Amino acid sequence: MKPLLRVLAGEPCWPPPIWLMRQAGRYLPEYRSLRAQARDFIEFCMTPDLAVEATLQPLRRYDFDAAILFSDILILPWALGRNVSFVDGEGPALEALQGADAIGGLDMVAMPERVAPVLEAVRRIRAALDTRTTLIGFAGAPFTVACYLIEGGSSSDFAATRRMAHAEPELFARLIDRLVAATITYLAAQIEAGAEAVMLFDSWAGILPPYLFRQHVVGATAQIVSSLKARFPTVPVVGFPRLAGLSIGAYAAATGVAAVGLDTAADPLLATSLLPERVAAQGNLDPTALVAGGTALEREARAILEALRGRPHVFNLGHGVMPATPPEHVAALVELVRAA
Amino acid sequence: MKPLLRVLAGEPCWPPPIWLMRQAGRYLPEYRSLRAQARDFIEFCMTPDLAVEATLQPLRRYDFDAAILFSDILILPWALGRNVSFVDGEGPALEALQGADAIGGLDMVAMPERVAPVLEAVRRIRAALDTRTTLIGFAGAPFTVACYLIEGGSSSDFAATRRMAHAEPELFARLIDRLVAATITYLAAQIEAGAEAVMLFDSWAGILPPYLFRQHVVGATAQIVSSLKARFPTVPVVGFPRLAGLSIGAYAAATGVAAVGLDTAADPLLATSLLPERVAAQGNLDPTALVAGGTALEREARAILEALRGRPHVFNLGHGVMPATPPEHVAALVELVRAA
Repeated sequence: MKPLLRVLAGEPCWPPPIWLMRQAGRYLPEYRSLRAQARDFIEFCMTPDLAVEATLQPLRRYDFDAAILFSDILILPWALGRNVSFVDGEGPALEALQGADAIGGLDMVAMPERVAPVLEAVRRIRAALDTRTTLIGFAGAPFTVACYLIEGGSSSDFAATRRMAHAEPELFARLIDRLVAATITYLAAQIEAGAEAVMLFDSWAGILPPYLFRQHVVGATAQIVSSLKARFPTVPVVGFPRLAGLSIGAYAAATGVAAVGLDTAADPLLATSLLPERVAAQGNLDPTALVAGGTALEREARAILEALRGRPHVFNLGHGVMPATPPEHVAALVELVRAA
Repeated sequence: MKPLLRVLAGEPCWPPPIWLMRQAGRYLPEYRSLRAQARDFIEFCMTPDLAVEATLQPLRRYDFDAAILFSDILILPWALGRNVSFVDGEGPALEALQGADAIGGLDMVAMPERVAPVLEAVRRIRAALDTRTTLIGFAGAPFTVACYLIEGGSSSDFAATRRMAHAEPELFARLIDRLVAATITYLAAQIEAGAEAVMLFDSWAGILPPYLFRQHVVGATAQIVSSLKARFPTVPVVGFPRLAGLSIGAYAAATGVAAVGLDTAADPLLATSLLPERVAAQGNLDPTALVAGGTALEREARAILEALRGRPHVFNLGHGVMPATPPEHVAALVELVRAA
């Protein structure tokens, strides 16, 4: 079995497998050249030639254990018929959903066909990978996608989303249900196209109070995991409830995920003490330590390796690679982990 | 003893005392009129007539257990000689500190005199309060103030600050040391002027990896607490390490704070299970539940009351009151807590 899949099946492995969130992207000069070949970011993601090449670029430089489909969590809302655009340096802009529109405004029928180019990219990436490298598919988790849909973009506090979850609980729950169904369809299609593991990015999970976290993060994730497990019993789901803090134990136990992504702030020993023994931990080097490099990078990477030695662990960052990261620091990190 | 001070001394109290972070401010129409009397926000904070009136406004409407000095965490960097301005709707803008400038750029000598109007406001507020209401002074915690100083304003990830903490550890530690000293001076002066408790707002504590959290959040807070305790043994310090998640237990045990503010995301039962028994918990209703009002507000407030009944608890929000909050929802919350 590929090393990453062994660890996601609950088996410790030393040194641990390694890949990095946003291992493809703007910090690589070859990505910046490639990006210039598409007019906008959606077109880039929806052109299989470009998405495949972006996915494979970091694997030519670094000895990673996984390729992760080059895409964006806002491709799903786009495929559901919402207008999505990316303005350089300003983040995404979406047509915001409002009121009853929150449900009717998502076109579940057109979605499978609109994501066809993504699935084509998955097929081609899988065919290009060697026998050691695992292909990871992904989607934004329903709560995080709902945040962007309701705010119409990013936000410092997603207050409108939280307010809606409190003030219009039925409507919000129906929106989450709709996104759960769409996410299951989307991830199942990625698996059928060749993804060997899938990851759910719940970037804003940590802004919810416990009651809403249980419902819209844990509950929604549990539904996705159980539905995918029924159809694809051997394909692991990795959950990343960013900033979940204390709730990470309940998340791991109640969702059935094979692995939990730890964010930068999580103390790895403390966090894994709350995880069931066979649930793998993924993470969690500070991406700014990777920007800094040198002794800071070395000290922090070694501390994480040491803390998680002996349990199933996938080395990764606590958040995505930053555009300012010198590519040679990534090489140094991979070397350090391989030589552990 | 005043109810709030009893709880901060470790004694449970039922129903718990209540006050709200940002209980004064933009959600109140009388504040908006008052604010119009000063040209800019710094001038507003530095004019005792206005700061006193802003502090007292919510106490005329609501039966709160505490008044908190109306000010801002950026008043300290301003008093240290940095240019600070507030642009409506855009957040603060500061002259960013860079490199060696990070230390020399803070004018420790001028600071005590520059904060004189704040201390005058503290004296007048204290004189105006009845015998049940506690006056809380405050400052930003050193790490959070360092974030603003280094970035020159707010940020989604404070990457430059974290990068500096990793890449220039000695310089960053000296900056934190300098801010620790300034914060001790500033809070001691507030206590001498009449503050009966002080709070340290560490809004960005949760973005740090564990190693830096221990050093710059726990370590810096511990120094401030021990220095204030030596001079003012009966004045409690409340710490608010926002988004500290799993690290809240270590924070409470190692800093010596009398109380820990829980942020919105913290599960109150889980979080307090990590606190020493006599350390009070403050929090942690979602401010967006207060915007929503109605059954959501009622359900979540009661869940928090119930979870923390029997231990020292100060009812509060998990973050500040939002400008969109209907003032009558605050009245309903105070009534609900008083009638618990």
